[in-house]
This record gives sequence, structure tokens and C-alpha cells, in this order.
Amino acid sequence: MASNYKKRGVDYQHNSNMRTLPGHYYHSEAIYREELAKIFYKRWLLVCREEELPTPGDFQTVTIGDESIILVRDEGGDIHAHFNVCRHRGTRICMEESGQFENGIIQCPYHAWRYRLNGELRAAPLMTELEGFDKAAYPLHSAHVRSWGGFVFLNLAENPLPFEQELGPLLGKFSEWHLPELRIAHRLEYELACNWKLILQNYQECYHCPGVHPLLSKWTPFRNAVHDCMEGAVIGGYMEMTEKGGGMTMDGKAAAPPVCEVHGDNLQRVHYYSIFPNLLFSPHPDFVLYHRIRPLGVGKSKNDCFFLLHPDVINNDAHMARFQSAIEFWDATNLEDWQVCEQMQLGLKSRRFDRGHYSGQEDILFALDREVLKALGHEGDD
Amino acid sequence: MASNYKKRGVDYQHNSNMRTLPGHYYHSEAIYREELAKIFYKRWLLVCREEELPTPGDFQTVTIGDESIILVRDEGGDIHAHFNVCRHRGTRICMEESGQFENGIIQCPYHAWRYRLNGELRAAPLMTELEGFDKAAYPLHSAHVRSWGGFVFLNLAENPLPFEQELGPLLGKFSEWHLPELRIAHRLEYELACNWKLILQNYQECYHCPGVHPLLSKWTPFRNAVHDCMEGAVIGGYMEMTEKGGGMTMDGKAAAPPVCEVHGDNLQRVHYYSIFPNLLFSPHPDFVLYHRIRPLGVGKSKNDCFFLLHPDVINNDAHMARFQSAIEFWDATNLEDWQVCEQMQLGLKSRRFDRGHYSGQEDILFALDREVLKALGHEGDD
Amino acid sequence: MASNYKKRGVDYQHNSNMRTLPGHYYHSEAIYREELAKIFYKRWLLVCREEELPTPGDFQTVTIGDESIILVRDEGGDIHAHFNVCRHRGTRICMEESGQFENGIIQCPYHAWRYRLNGELRAAPLMTELEGFDKAAYPLHSAHVRSWGGFVFLNLAENPLPFEQELGPLLGKFSEWHLPELRIAHRLEYELACNWKLILQNYQECYHCPGVHPLLSKWTPFRNAVHDCMEGAVIGGYMEMTEKGGGMTMDGKAAAPPVCEVHGDNLQRVHYYSIFPNLLFSPHPDFVLYHRIRPLGVGKSKNDCFFLLHPDVINNDAHMARFQSAIEFWDATNLEDWQVCEQMQLGLKSRRFDRGHYSGQEDILFALDREVLKALGHEGDD
Repeated sequence: MASNYKKRGVDYQHNSNMRTLPGHYYHSEAIYREELAKIFYKRWLLVCREEELPTPGDFQTVTIGDESIILVRDEGGDIHAHFNVCRHRGTRICMEESGQFENGIIQCPYHAWRYRLNGELRAAPLMTELEGFDKAAYPLHSAHVRSWGGFVFLNLAENPLPFEQELGPLLGKFSEWHLPELRIAHRLEYELACNWKLILQNYQECYHCPGVHPLLSKWTPFRNAVHDCMEGAVIGGYMEMTEKGGGMTMDGKAAAPPVCEVHGDNLQRVHYYSIFPNLLFSPHPDFVLYHRIRPLGVGKSKNDCFFLLHPDVINNDAHMARFQSAIEFWDATNLEDWQVCEQMQLGLKSRRFDRGHYSGQEDILFALDREVLKALGHEGDD
Repeated sequence: MASNYKKRGVDYQHNSNMRTLPGHYYHSEAIYREELAKIFYKRWLLVCREEELPTPGDFQTVTIGDESIILVRDEGGDIHAHFNVCRHRGTRICMEESGQFENGIIQCPYHAWRYRLNGELRAAPLMTELEGFDKAAYPLHSAHVRSWGGFVFLNLAENPLPFEQELGPLLGKFSEWHLPELRIAHRLEYELACNWKLILQNYQECYHCPGVHPLLSKWTPFRNAVHDCMEGAVIGGYMEMTEKGGGMTMDGKAAAPPVCEVHGDNLQRVHYYSIFPNLLFSPHPDFVLYHRIRPLGVGKSKNDCFFLLHPDVINNDAHMARFQSAIEFWDATNLEDWQVCEQMQLGLKSRRFDRGHYSGQEDILFALDREVLKALGHEGDD
Repeated sequence: MASNYKKRGVDYQHNSNMRTLPGHYYHSEAIYREELAKIFYKRWLLVCREEELPTPGDFQTVTIGDESIILVRDEGGDIHAHFNVCRHRGTRICMEESGQFENGIIQCPYHAWRYRLNGELRAAPLMTELEGFDKAAYPLHSAHVRSWGGFVFLNLAENPLPFEQELGPLLGKFSEWHLPELRIAHRLEYELACNWKLILQNYQECYHCPGVHPLLSKWTPFRNAVHDCMEGAVIGGYMEMTEKGGGMTMDGKAAAPPVCEVHGDNLQRVHYYSIFPNLLFSPHPDFVLYHRIRPLGVGKSKNDCFFLLHPDVINNDAHMARFQSAIEFWDATNLEDWQVCEQMQLGLKSRRFDRGHYSGQEDILFALDREVLKALGHEGDD
């Protein structure tokens, strides 16, 4: 039972048996624990931008499920990720969200064990009196870190999948934007009463746009959607603006000059890629927008939404005055999305919900669901 | 070990082995989930009065456990109950507690699927592009609705027990009150920190009245209680007032003229019936009082208490000024009851509680417990 | 792999395999339920001082896990502990934290069953109409109570371990303080976001003192710690002050004259004993400080900290003005401790925490852990 659904740019075989996940995937505490263990403790996660740790000793702490991680730049400029857990008796070492470790020392407040920025145990008072105590055996547990385009990714697995393999389709794709040169111009923070997967799903289809986003639909009609990555950790595509020089702002005009070397077709496209499981990445002609998603519970999520610009634009007051229109546009659009995500979370609790059918506009969500099921090892269950 | 306990009007064989339910029936999350599944998702529940949906398109949403239900009056005047869940992907359609669906359309805010008031899918944008998509196969899931005496009852089961069978003993019993003609004159709302069953139990015995309700005991001494329905979904009886023309008010005089055709013995009786599991129904000579109970959790319940009067009384300012005395009386009496219900909830947590023995005044609670156990299929366990 | 760690006053064989408990002992809801059942419902618990129930009819209610207990002094001067649960249908009888039962009667507010202070059922309205109802068979369930040194201990087990056996090492040890004569001079209350065991552990080692307690470490350097009870329900020892006449105050001088007959070495010692599971007991030369600990959940605890003085000191304004310095010192010191306890609670959630190694300063914590494991019957698991 397949129908040839004509997608712009892609001939796509839409299968009318493409059904949504069962409702308990959004409500079961057990499924959520499994997702933490098999997805958030195993996959590459966006945590911050390199610029957020400018000098040696600068740190950020990041919470992922039950884990707190210290991200810190060492004296040589490398970024390390340490479990925020003292090797002595398990105390959480650092309570601040960000700051500077003085004198290159990470010190546990309880019994004053001291670690170097690279995680090595430097001093453990009195433990040296114990026979056989070997400092070298007690570094902070550390996690894998990789940078790409100025983004810092973290992986809590002991043996992660290769980073390049996960991000494959994106590598090189956005070189026109000079991503490493961009800086955070603004940040919007949201807490949502819904499961993290609903945010990714909402991001990946524009079937909802006509009803939910009147303004967005005006600048980028939903029929202008093209999906060019339909499988794996990176999925998405782009939407074409109705006019060149347009922008995702309150008046539909560009919010800023084109970013670095952006040109040609890209001047008219808004890209939407999700890097599974927690980065939503949207290069626009005139800025880069990205969302960092973190689950706070089975039905609660945090979304931090960032705007990247070239420093030359950030340092220009006139440019930044104009840029407010993009911030205003996306804040309004985000809130329109969160409302329907939260309503979907509620409806999915019903015992009568017996899995929906995806429309031809939503087949990419089927791909997203497959990625979830694959990560959980639930593929056979479907 | 049975004793002949002489009840007013009824020779009743009270069995001294009539014991209460074990404490975990009031605290176990598992029992509560079972009660939702086997009682609240299966039995007839009071949801509102017909008058609360006066015109076509008027709706109320009702929450029962994890389910949200839309009650709506259609163009032909019929009331429908729809699961508040879009057939597309499960979004909760309607967030308001009450309102009007414009143009006879129930529209999901997410992808704009549109349903008729009777639940039929009218339009699903773009789905028609899918081969084999049959709109007729996607109406809103609906639930059974029945009216009696102006009360609207809902049943979430696919094949409910016959309504008449459940309400049998009440049908025709209160014709003197002209129930369908009555209107809501006042509403009191309460949230209680106790299991829903404790509210029903509290309602069904007046053994507690001398200590808990000094005023009520003065107008209707607890020895005046007569139980005439001792088995099944409807149980209860009445209490006789010490004087004709008396009323359940602060001064013990009637709160209003007798309702419609109430006469004879009924002028001196306050009736107390529970319609399992969520309606407490109290025709008085001068008004009708009822409680709608909803479980919010194993140890948390909502109780909405309504007063019904004939419109002629409601529209008479002098009558309504006097009627405040009934509202004041019942609000005070309710609060006296909730206090002891909440203390019982706390005490039932104790590991030392080993099931109490019902007094002769409380044997009707044993009947109530049997109805619970029967619904849960736990009869053999007792 | 053992090393001879030289402790002041004790030659102690420290084993470098002395490892901490696994992290789930501080986070698992199941372990917590087990601790309630096997520790808090079975062992001797400090509940109050005798002085808090000065006259017949005086009561306090105490919450232990799901149980509420009424402690009441009867007409003969004896203290009773009753489960706060009516024998009729399980209602919690008394909601106040403390007060006076009038006329020697404990009355349930629901159906007015009345009990004597010693727990006997005195009247159960109407139950006597029931054939075979024997009042003598329905006293309040009671628990065991014992007094020592003015402290009142409670045991909820039906057949408790002998009190003297549990407290063995303490009996007679502090006779110089004339404990029964002392009175509560002040009380500090804290709620902590950590498991109860972390409070006991924090109390039993001073390895953390240099980093956490600068002032305390000045008056009692951590190397001055001597542990003389290293096994069983009572463990602990003392710390020696750097100077005679010193005190645990803001300026390091005594807070009050020596208590009663305290003399000799005790003038320079601060004692720290934990009486498993909920009393931390610290005789100082100039006052007695104790902590009463109660678990409120697996990760939440209540700590009430009391200061005892002789009435002659309490009644002397000049003495009490000076004594504020001890209160100020201990309040600050307590807060320093709670901070690290709460950080340890957070860190112990990490999946990477793989049990720490105790230092030679912490071997007494290993003894404390053994007491927990023994009580839970988990010894073989270690």
C-alpha cells in the first residue's frame, strides 16, 4: 500500500503504513530511563560553543539525566569533559553553572582532593599515608569531546561511535557560513512540558505550519520544503523563501547581511537539520540559529535557542538593532510550536490513542522514530 | 457470630465479621491504576447537567484519570462525548474547560484536522493526497452518554453495562422533584487530600455525626437514619428531620419552598444516595444537593458540590437571600467531613492498621466495599 | 593489603580495601523502604527529652516514615507511645505536634472512640450494641519506650532488641554531666536534601574539617581525633581541644561553666558519638549538643539540633548572653556540613561512581556502613 507522493526535488515513496510511535514512548518512565542509558549516555551531544570556554581554567557544568559533567579548557587549550564526581567518595565537586578554576586546580570541597584541569589527581591529603595508594589510578572519570564548526560535542560512552560517522552528511556542507568564526549574539531559554522527541518531530515537518505559524508560512510556504537527509543521525532539509533577500523576521526582510560567504541558492534557503539526539541546526542566509535540547524528565524538556552572527555584525549597533526582528520572530514562532508540542504530550496519554498515520509531509518523522527505535534496540517491536 | 441489630424501619442482620478494606486500598498506586481501569474507565460517571450545554456547539472538557473527554451538544440537540485526542497523531485538541465550537467545527490546533460536532472527520489537509485514505475511518473516538433527570452521565467503556440496570433503584423514585426542570443555583469546589472511596464512605454513615456535625445532628439525629438500598451501584437511604418544615440550614428552618411536587413524608426527609462511583445525590424537601467526585490521584480527590433549585426560586431575590443559609450550612458541614476524611487517609498508611470492624451503623459501608471489590475482581481475596 | 595506620591512642589496622557503599544505597527508593522496615521500624530511636512531657496528659506526636506515634505521659508519670491510629477504622487521631489531652482522654475525632492515656479503649459509642464486642480487645497499638539520661527512646518493633545492649558503651560513660538534670536551652532545625546516612557519616570523620570547617579545625585540629567505639550501634570518640578552658564558640573560649561534675580530661574533650540510627550525641565540657535525625525520603532528611544546659545556667542571663556564641558557632558549622552532604548526595547518582576508598581517617565510616548492611541483612552482598 504505497503511493507515489511527489515531493519538491525528491521522488519519494510514501508508505501509508507509516505509523507513529505508540503513546507510551512519550510517557513511560521505563522508556525514558532506557533513552537516557542508550541515547543520552551513548550518543554525541551538543553541549556548548568553543567561545563559551575562552581561556584556560574556564568551565561549564552540564547536566545530562543523572550525570553532571564539567567541561573545562586546559592550559594547552584543549577542552576536557570530566564527570563531576570526586574519586574519593563521590561528592559532586562543582555546583556552579560556569566559572574559572583558579590556579589550574579543580578541588573537591569535601575532603579537598585536588585535580589538574586535565583530570589527573594532584593531591589527596593523607591518602598517601595509605600503603599502596597510587594517585595515578584516581583521575577524574572523563568523557569524549569533539569540536566541529565551533560547536563542542560530548559523548559519555566509553567507546563512542565515530563522530565523523554520525555527523557525516553535515561535514563540509555549510562551509560558506565559516561556522567557527561565528559568535553567540542572543539566547532564548524555554522549559517545555513535553517529551524531548516531540520537539524534534515538531522541528522536522511543516505540515503544521499553515495552522500554527501564519507569519512563517508567509515567508516560507510549507510546500517549499525539501528533505535531503532522510536517514540516520542527521536528517532534514531546507525551505525556500518566497523572495531573494527575504528573512525570517517580523517583516520578512533579511535580519542582517549574508553570513560570510553565503551566496547563490543559499541566500534564499532556511536549513533545518536535526543532529540526533539534541541539536537542531538552522543556517539562515543572514544568521545561524540552533536549539540545544535536554530532557529533564519523561515529560519535561529544556530548550536553549541560540543565534550566531559574525562578530562584525555583533559589533555594529545598527545591525543589531535590526537583528531584534529575527529574535522577535523566532521567539514568537518557538512559542507557537511549544504550545502544540505540549498539547500532543497530553493527548498521547490517552488509552484510546492507537498510533497515528503520518501524512506525506511527515515521512521524515518516520525516519526519526526509526533512529529512536534503533538506538533503543526496539526495532523488532514495531 | 451475627447479632440482630434493630435499625429503624429495617430488621437487619449485622455481622460482626464485617471488616473494612485493608489500608493499601487507599495508598497503593497499583490499586489506584486498577480502579481507573476497572471503575472510572468502565462505569457510568456523572459529568455535568444538561443545562451546562444549552446550545449546539457548546462544550465542556472533563478529565478522568489520564483521559480528557469533550462533551458537546450537536446541531440536532444530542450530546456527544469524544476523546479529546486527534486521530492524526494524538494531540489533545481542546484545552479550555468549556466554550463554544464555532461553525460546528472541532479543529485540532496542530495540523488543522477538522471534525464535525458528532465526531466525523470533515477535513484532513493533504491526507487525501495519500492513496487509500478514507476520512470515514477517522472519526474522533467517542464514548457513551446518557441523560437522566437533567444529569449527563458518561461511560468510557466500549460496551458499557446498561445504564438503567446501574441506576435501577433511582428511576422514578424522585419524580416529585421534577429533576429535569431544576437548575444549578450554586457550586462549591473542594480538593481533598484523601482517596475517593473515603468520601463515599463518609457520605454513607452518620455514626460520625454526633462528634463531627453538631448542627446537622440537631436537625437530623443520627438514629433517624434509614437505609433502603443496601446493595449494588446505588446505595443509601434517608434521614428524618426532627420537625416538619425543617431544613438543613444554619437555623434548621427550610431554605426555600418545597421543590415542585414534593409532599408528604418527603417534606421531612433528607435523602442520601451514592451512585457508584462518583455521584452523591441528596434530594432535600427544599432543594437538591449533589456531589461530583473525581480522583486526582490515589490520595487526592476533587469534589464539586452543586445546589439545584427551580428557576422560579433562583429568579426570586428574597428566596435566594434566604437560600444562603443552606449554602453556609453545607459548606461548613462539608469541611467538617473533609477534615476527618483526610485524617483517615493518613492513619490508613500505618503498618499497624489491621482492618477495622464496622459498627451496626456502618454496615452499608461494607456493601460499598463489596461493590469496589466486585468491580476490581478482588472478591475472592477478602 | 593492610597498612598499620597510627591513630592517636589506638593502634588500628586500616585495610585499604575498605570501600564505601554503592551509590544506589543513597538513591534507591527500594533500599529506603527496606531501611524504614528494618531500621527505623525496628531499632531504638531518640524521640524527645523527658522534660518535653512535663505533666500527665502532655503529648507529642512523632512521624517515623509512614507512622505517626503519640508519646504521652500518663497519670502515674509513665510515658507511653501509641500508634496514632484509631482501632475502629484507622483514622489518625491526633494532628497536633504537641499539646495536652484533657480529662485523661484521647478521643478520635471521627466516630468519637475514646482511649485512656495508657491506651485502653474506654468508650466506643454503639459498638457495645454489637454482640461479642469486647472493649479490652481494642486498646491503641503501642510501642516500646525507654528513658536514659533524660532522653526518651522509642522502638516500633514488637520484640525490640534490649535497649541496654544497644546503648551498652554509653551507659555510665557520661555520669559527670548529670544528663537527666539538663534542660533544652536552644534548638536549631534543618531540612537537608540528602540521605540520612550521609549525615551520620559526615559526623563521624574529621578528614573533611580542614577544608570545610576553618574555625572548628582551629579549636580542635583534626589530628586530635580519637575513636574509641568502632563497632556496633554506638560508635565514635572525641577530639581534644588545643587548650584547656577552650570551647566550640566563635572565639574558642568556653561557652559556659563546666557542666555539673565535668572535670579532668573531659574539660578538654568534645565527644562525638552516634547512637544508630538517629541520635548524634556530643557532650562538650560546657554543654551537651545532640542531633535528632529523621528521614523524610530517600534523599531528604530532617535534623533537629539541641543544646542542653543545667537550669542554673539557663536561668542566668549573663551566662545565656555568652552562650549565644556556641549557638552561632554550631549553626555555622552545621551549615558548612550540610552543604557538602548535599553535594555528595548529588554526586552519588552518577553511573560512573564505582564506590570510593576510605582513608585512614574514615575507617569508622566503614564500621557505620557495616551496621547498616547488617541491619538490612545485606552483609553477604558486599
